[in-house]
Amino acid sequence: MGWQFVLIICACAYICSAENVVDPTIKTMEAFSGYLNVNGNEKDPFHSTMVDFVNLQKQIDQLSAFSDSPAPSVTRILYSHNDVAARRFIKDLMGRAGLSVREDAVGNIFGRWEGSEPDAPAVATGSHIDAIPYSGKYDGVVGVLGAIEAINLLRRSGFRPKRSLEVIMFTSEEPTRYGISCLGSRLLAGSVSLAKALTQTVDNDNISFLDAAKSAGYAKNEDFSNVFLDEKTYSAFVELHIEQGPILENEGVSIGIVTAIAAPASIKVDFGGNGGHAGAVLMPQRNDAGLAAAELALAVEKHVLESGSIDTVGTVGIMEVHPGAINSIPSKSHIEIDTRDIDEKRRNTVIEKIQESAVSISKRRGVELLEFKIVNQDPPALSDESVVKAMESATQVLGLSHKKMISRAYHDSLFMARKAPMGMIFIPCYKGYSHKPEEYASPEDIANGVKVLALTLTNLSLN
Amino acid sequence: MGWQFVLIICACAYICSAENVVDPTIKTMEAFSGYLNVNGNEKDPFHSTMVDFVNLQKQIDQLSAFSDSPAPSVTRILYSHNDVAARRFIKDLMGRAGLSVREDAVGNIFGRWEGSEPDAPAVATGSHIDAIPYSGKYDGVVGVLGAIEAINLLRRSGFRPKRSLEVIMFTSEEPTRYGISCLGSRLLAGSVSLAKALTQTVDNDNISFLDAAKSAGYAKNEDFSNVFLDEKTYSAFVELHIEQGPILENEGVSIGIVTAIAAPASIKVDFGGNGGHAGAVLMPQRNDAGLAAAELALAVEKHVLESGSIDTVGTVGIMEVHPGAINSIPSKSHIEIDTRDIDEKRRNTVIEKIQESAVSISKRRGVELLEFKIVNQDPPALSDESVVKAMESATQVLGLSHKKMISRAYHDSLFMARKAPMGMIFIPCYKGYSHKPEEYASPEDIANGVKVLALTLTNLSLN
Repeated sequence: MGWQFVLIICACAYICSAENVVDPTIKTMEAFSGYLNVNGNEKDPFHSTMVDFVNLQKQIDQLSAFSDSPAPSVTRILYSHNDVAARRFIKDLMGRAGLSVREDAVGNIFGRWEGSEPDAPAVATGSHIDAIPYSGKYDGVVGVLGAIEAINLLRRSGFRPKRSLEVIMFTSEEPTRYGISCLGSRLLAGSVSLAKALTQTVDNDNISFLDAAKSAGYAKNEDFSNVFLDEKTYSAFVELHIEQGPILENEGVSIGIVTAIAAPASIKVDFGGNGGHAGAVLMPQRNDAGLAAAELALAVEKHVLESGSIDTVGTVGIMEVHPGAINSIPSKSHIEIDTRDIDEKRRNTVIEKIQESAVSISKRRGVELLEFKIVNQDPPALSDESVVKAMESATQVLGLSHKKMISRAYHDSLFMARKAPMGMIFIPCYKGYSHKPEEYASPEDIANGVKVLALTLTNLSLN
Repeated sequence: MGWQFVLIICACAYICSAENVVDPTIKTMEAFSGYLNVNGNEKDPFHSTMVDFVNLQKQIDQLSAFSDSPAPSVTRILYSHNDVAARRFIKDLMGRAGLSVREDAVGNIFGRWEGSEPDAPAVATGSHIDAIPYSGKYDGVVGVLGAIEAINLLRRSGFRPKRSLEVIMFTSEEPTRYGISCLGSRLLAGSVSLAKALTQTVDNDNISFLDAAKSAGYAKNEDFSNVFLDEKTYSAFVELHIEQGPILENEGVSIGIVTAIAAPASIKVDFGGNGGHAGAVLMPQRNDAGLAAAELALAVEKHVLESGSIDTVGTVGIMEVHPGAINSIPSKSHIEIDTRDIDEKRRNTVIEKIQESAVSISKRRGVELLEFKIVNQDPPALSDESVVKAMESATQVLGLSHKKMISRAYHDSLFMARKAPMGMIFIPCYKGYSHKPEEYASPEDIANGVKVLALTLTNLSLN
């Protein structure tokens, strides 16, 4: 499929904004005639003002208030009081956008705009709204509220979908509460092991996933396999997201078109030692679980740097010692490691080295390696060529600069790619900041993202 | 004073157990005659059964139930509900032992047995009952409940003190809640800076010391200088304590006679970095506050080992990262360091090296060293020769093996030494374990400690 054709397909979004809406597949042929202009803005079938970015920003701000930590930080943990309140807020917005709302057993929320071919696989978009402790208000949120605004924009433009359009709010993209990242999309993608694990997993306060989900109104029959998507549910999936990196801002580019998502893995490690009194136990008698953890944290950094590739990253975001008193030698330690790469094999080599280090540190220090658990070790995902072209074409129609790029952060798209051709739209964010209160994307950049998303959806819906 | 004389003085504890109690200073002369034997036990003026170790063990077990963590662990934090309940338990036992009870503004509790010379400086003994998180039931407790049992033993033996005897339960020997170790004894020793600091200090939950103390019934007038001891309050102070090290058990020795207490210091360090997303921020762009903390923890160990002395120890018992999510680079870290030595200068060299490392790590990693605070840096304390001799003589009279040794853990004695000649009696504990649930001392070893304490108190009271 040549880019011109894609361009034309996209342009029908404008065509459909005319008063007399007819079969858009017919309009496609008219669009082919080259009739693209309206109100003198040849490049933008949506007027800038047609993205209601003032209202969208207001919604982003409103949603950020559902937080367990004070503003400007956001903390929104799966099935917490604030998460449940935020879900109501999203469902309400979906309803106002004319979407019919349904939820599955883990609380993935779907808002559907029925197309003229309701039995054809639908086109989906969406992201998440959960937020790790003390993070920001844009990660995920832009891809949910932005998707709803894209629907509103298409309605205001007079567009009528052929394939149905669905906005998805995924449950627990962040692993905060149950240690499982992309819980909702991972389950949608058909993870049998996850469906089973969810019936038994508990959080740090020993609250089971089942009890927590039930308290939020989900998990009514405890069978999570009914969440799995059929192969033919969606013909495409697109996610709008802040870049969470500095490249677009640094290079002054409006839109990032993601071609691949780096392969993430997460590991939990526990060390155990004898502990004891910080004054009385002499250094040669010690087997300090805290120092074993410190050493492994530095080993993670070392092995990541040894890969020699800028694309390999590794982080120890959680480091805890027990009992946690200044005059007590740590008898237990717990660290959690996140490592990613666009090259799965290279990342797996890093994981092997980390495991070897954990074993050798424990032997050398006489500390017990109580657990070395690879919680997840996912392959990377590639965007589908057809979706990439649709996104690229949209940026061209809109006259927005764009750049093809890798997503180093993982997203629900990583798992949706297993069930449908996938693509992601990135927008710049301030200094690349993410997962902290300083996270910021400008209303203009968000509006650009919403327009590219809307135009991409029209293309995919009519295709 | 020759050891024979001390022996004789001690022996009066037995003498006084006769039915017709007269002026013990007169009895001293009778004891001098060499009349030491009763019931064929020439070496032990107290029958083994006279230490009611069954009841003492019961009290230790009862006290351990006032805990914020489940048995066998004990967690008893200053001015908590359980701490206040445990204080009532102690005051009740003091009252039953015929002691007149008083408390000062921070909750140091004093139980006094008035001697025949009530205006003479008294002889004091005691320890603490607060317990760090997930610790054991003997640390400190043996020196409080054991002291009350020593008083009971002396009463049952018919002893009559010349100098008054006082049992002290010190407030917050452990630094858990307000980061200040030996809070009660430090204040008794006249710390003007502490008296001032207490009016402003807050805990991790932002509860002020004043509010917490008031909630427990103390700090009525907010002037803590009235806690300071006069120079002439006590003629001697003795503390009974578990060794918290393995030496006595390994060598099969019953009693440790402490000649010096190692010099403790504690340090708080905070690092700050930019944090960010664990996937999106590439390694060269990072300034990871968690890795800075890990590196400093290992540097503490390195500098301690560099001292070349077995007597130098250093511990990182607290290590925290913020925000504490697996996919978030730590933007803040906090560690607390405890370092001690019997050689103050050598320990201070370690502190200097730790500070240099903190600075160089922060520079190299581009991480901000937000705080490097030496919370306390105390000198070591030497036991007084007169008290050491009294304790040594008591072990000889009782036929108990003993060993002179260093206390590597600090105790309230470290500060009481500033106000009175000080000595400490150690008893063996299982594998040297302390500050953990496995902490254990046998009833027999505790009974031996109580007997040595009782006999030492008689000596010091009559002297």
